[in-house]
Amino acid sequence: MGSFKGHALPGSFFLVAGLWWTGKYSLWHATRRNKSIGSTRLSSRASQRRLEIIESSVILFFSFVGMLAEQFLADGPRLQLYDFVEKHWEDLMNWQHATMYLFFGLAATVSLVIHTTEAAPLALDRLMMAIAFFNEGFLFLYHLHGRSMLDVHVASASALCCFRRSSCCFLEVFHRGNIILELLRCTLTLLQGSWFWQIGFVLYPPQGPEWDLKDHNNVMFVTMCYSWHLAFAMLVVSVLYCTVSCVVRSRLKRTPPMEMGLLKPRDRDPESEDEIL
Amino acid sequence: MGSFKGHALPGSFFLVAGLWWTGKYSLWHATRRNKSIGSTRLSSRASQRRLEIIESSVILFFSFVGMLAEQFLADGPRLQLYDFVEKHWEDLMNWQHATMYLFFGLAATVSLVIHTTEAAPLALDRLMMAIAFFNEGFLFLYHLHGRSMLDVHVASASALCCFRRSSCCFLEVFHRGNIILELLRCTLTLLQGSWFWQIGFVLYPPQGPEWDLKDHNNVMFVTMCYSWHLAFAMLVVSVLYCTVSCVVRSRLKRTPPMEMGLLKPRDRDPESEDEIL
Amino acid sequence: MGSFKGHALPGSFFLVAGLWWTGKYSLWHATRRNKSIGSTRLSSRASQRRLEIIESSVILFFSFVGMLAEQFLADGPRLQLYDFVEKHWEDLMNWQHATMYLFFGLAATVSLVIHTTEAAPLALDRLMMAIAFFNEGFLFLYHLHGRSMLDVHVASASALCCFRRSSCCFLEVFHRGNIILELLRCTLTLLQGSWFWQIGFVLYPPQGPEWDLKDHNNVMFVTMCYSWHLAFAMLVVSVLYCTVSCVVRSRLKRTPPMEMGLLKPRDRDPESEDEIL
Amino acid sequence: MGSFKGHALPGSFFLVAGLWWTGKYSLWHATRRNKSIGSTRLSSRASQRRLEIIESSVILFFSFVGMLAEQFLADGPRLQLYDFVEKHWEDLMNWQHATMYLFFGLAATVSLVIHTTEAAPLALDRLMMAIAFFNEGFLFLYHLHGRSMLDVHVASASALCCFRRSSCCFLEVFHRGNIILELLRCTLTLLQGSWFWQIGFVLYPPQGPEWDLKDHNNVMFVTMCYSWHLAFAMLVVSVLYCTVSCVVRSRLKRTPPMEMGLLKPRDRDPESEDEIL
Repeated sequence: MGSFKGHALPGSFFLVAGLWWTGKYSLWHATRRNKSIGSTRLSSRASQRRLEIIESSVILFFSFVGMLAEQFLADGPRLQLYDFVEKHWEDLMNWQHATMYLFFGLAATVSLVIHTTEAAPLALDRLMMAIAFFNEGFLFLYHLHGRSMLDVHVASASALCCFRRSSCCFLEVFHRGNIILELLRCTLTLLQGSWFWQIGFVLYPPQGPEWDLKDHNNVMFVTMCYSWHLAFAMLVVSVLYCTVSCVVRSRLKRTPPMEMGLLKPRDRDPESEDEIL
Repeated sequence: MGSFKGHALPGSFFLVAGLWWTGKYSLWHATRRNKSIGSTRLSSRASQRRLEIIESSVILFFSFVGMLAEQFLADGPRLQLYDFVEKHWEDLMNWQHATMYLFFGLAATVSLVIHTTEAAPLALDRLMMAIAFFNEGFLFLYHLHGRSMLDVHVASASALCCFRRSSCCFLEVFHRGNIILELLRCTLTLLQGSWFWQIGFVLYPPQGPEWDLKDHNNVMFVTMCYSWHLAFAMLVVSVLYCTVSCVVRSRLKRTPPMEMGLLKPRDRDPESEDEIL
Repeated sequence: MGSFKGHALPGSFFLVAGLWWTGKYSLWHATRRNKSIGSTRLSSRASQRRLEIIESSVILFFSFVGMLAEQFLADGPRLQLYDFVEKHWEDLMNWQHATMYLFFGLAATVSLVIHTTEAAPLALDRLMMAIAFFNEGFLFLYHLHGRSMLDVHVASASALCCFRRSSCCFLEVFHRGNIILELLRCTLTLLQGSWFWQIGFVLYPPQGPEWDLKDHNNVMFVTMCYSWHLAFAMLVVSVLYCTVSCVVRSRLKRTPPMEMGLLKPRDRDPESEDEIL
Repeated sequence: MGSFKGHALPGSFFLVAGLWWTGKYSLWHATRRNKSIGSTRLSSRASQRRLEIIESSVILFFSFVGMLAEQFLADGPRLQLYDFVEKHWEDLMNWQHATMYLFFGLAATVSLVIHTTEAAPLALDRLMMAIAFFNEGFLFLYHLHGRSMLDVHVASASALCCFRRSSCCFLEVFHRGNIILELLRCTLTLLQGSWFWQIGFVLYPPQGPEWDLKDHNNVMFVTMCYSWHLAFAMLVVSVLYCTVSCVVRSRLKRTPPMEMGLLKPRDRDPESEDEIL
């Protein structure tokens, strides 16, 4: 799938995942902060768990579809790894992409098991996600033997993004529920998604002229582009976060909570406690 | 702005920022330590907040000015990214510099929002700063295709400084208010500032002979220079810190605190509690 | 021992060690979690200590055997480091392998001392293991001067695995008893083991044709293979973990604990306390 | 001082520093652990402070001597940086070495200030040490332009050691008094010391034949040598630690403590509290 579509599709998935996670974590954080004002119906533990299960199922389904698509579409290897007649490997690119999907599938499976049963420690889902992202970056990095300069540059920027996200997830193993890390992960996922689209446009332009993959100025422009995508991702995450926060707050104010008088107003969440110094 | 002025200007901004931060954090730390002796008028939460807002506004203003200057001064691209007639990118260097300023502007905006409203978690401003510094280092690193040895060396030293500062800010997300990290950040900011001046003198000497950018001895000298700049920055920060500490202490002693008798004297701050062992 | 056996043997050791550790840590974690339901006979402190001592002795024994084998088998250097007649180093590969074994032996010795006497702080055994793994990766990395592309690739993947394990152990110095890190270490050990077998098959195929060590496609296949080994190791660890958990739970339910009524049921272990948010 | 002596001298300093620190931290740790049994005369806060002051003064003195020696001995630059007549830099190597000493001198000065006055936060001395080691590694790394393979290899191993020590010190900023980190730092300092001697013997053999600096086998041997030095340093540290522990314990048992009956026996220090699981 070394084509425009082959980059646009996973890019779209990452974009959707990034938006979804931003919404989810913003909602949870907002309801947590406003716990004293209103109710916690929106983020009770049972509903959180149900959400996680649905999310994991969806990821599992799409990574399964992705694996099948890589294997059986158009010019896929159809599960044949080595061509013993002509003595060469069959479509290694497709196999590598399928491997990437496999790891996301594994992560989703583990997450599913964790949230349906009590068998495994909770932090394991973040570790699995960290491994999946690391594996993606690792495969990206070795994708590149003997490619042209711009191609290498584009993919190493992508790998960089993967490794940063992987570190971010790994930190979440120890600092679970830290909204800063969660938003950072969302931003990097959005970045990855829009960057996949960018790669598609640069390497396989659907229309218009081909890019000169050896021009030095193109490398410099693409580097800058990466920064702009990051800025854009940050913008989207912050807008979404603020919107969700405002909506939650206004909703909770309208529904008069019964137990209002019994609670001490806590106008500051524990996260900002170090501000008092 | 690949010129002497183009390096001297941001260098001066960094120097001023480093000095300002050193003063600010020293003052806060000193007043915190001496809380029991005197009053906390100097570092009440409201005045801290006001200070942060002013600081963010100034940074926002200057990064906006910087972006405009990169675009519209002398040989700027005037917001034109691609010259479709001659088919080449317009002044990519200026665009890259404007991108750097953009991220500092974003960080300042977020900081402004955090400190005026209660919308976002406090630690976000440090994360934004970490991202801004990381972005600066990232762009620096890819500035360099096909330059001469000394040029590359000078800029990679600069990128190294950016990455260290970025890591430092990222650690502050988790250890907010740690004076050690804050002073380290100030030192690295001062280093960056004076190093920009050094780069200006080496690459675009305003007078006197050009440097031989391929001489091996020049590379070695410049490396050593970097260490000296670091030593100098450390010296400046420590002198400033000690001065502020002394002044605060003597001031607080002169104004007899009213509530003196009600407080247990705490002669040691919590930071040094691990010394007792 | 640059041969198939020379890779298969340590590979097998690593596989056994990985399986053993997975079992051990799963058992301890499971008994800890179910402490309130049943008894803690299975993981009393004394029995844990006895287990650690036996384990360390076994590792010490095998690393000693390994060192002897590298020195005195077939074409070993027999403790002679430099051939003064012909003026060249004797079998540096064997010496390097013996050095790797030496560090594992040292780690086992320290672990033995820690668990038999009270002389040293407990976390030292993890530090020693981190150093042993780091040393292994370090030697691997410098194994490679002037080898062919695939050879370098295979060994650097191995070194990567070593460094990750080393970091994992180092983290355990500070987060001892964290089941996530322990399972990660087990996974990486299994990966190392099966990867050693893979290296043996690639570089010294016991039968069939030689691999073309310069073919670009082989490099890409081997990269993907590494991911598959990782997925396989993750699968083995999770199956083993779940099995042990289930067995422990069912065992503990069958033996009616005497002190049942005196204990408050704790259905959730402290690890997952951050889920409530 | 690119000579045998020029490496043997700092090597000896590092060896002495490593031994001294091992002794100091072992003693403090041992007295802390046995606090309940006997007295704390050996490690009262005042005597600790006195020790730190003496240590800092000695380091300051020797780094001053080192700077002077680099400048004024035999073929030093005598404070002249640039030869304006012949237009070349004067003895940059000596200047670089002097810069390394300068940073150790700065660290010692700061440590002196911290322990004589109460002006600065305690953790600053570790940060300064981390910076000094980092600076040493940084200069080492750029020492190397245009040298032969073995020379580069030897010095990069040295820089690796510096960076590891620097990270170790930086961790101590946050985990002060952690005996594991302290012993690790001692080990790495000893390693640095003995490695300096090794560099001296390899690059400037005082007698016997020169080494072939381009032979691949020499590189492999030197790599292995590095591991052996590490093993040796670990051995020395552990022997010293055990000796000090035993001596302290036997001493404290002989002197019957007066306040014995007033103290609850604490047979386990807080460090090993995670062993209970």
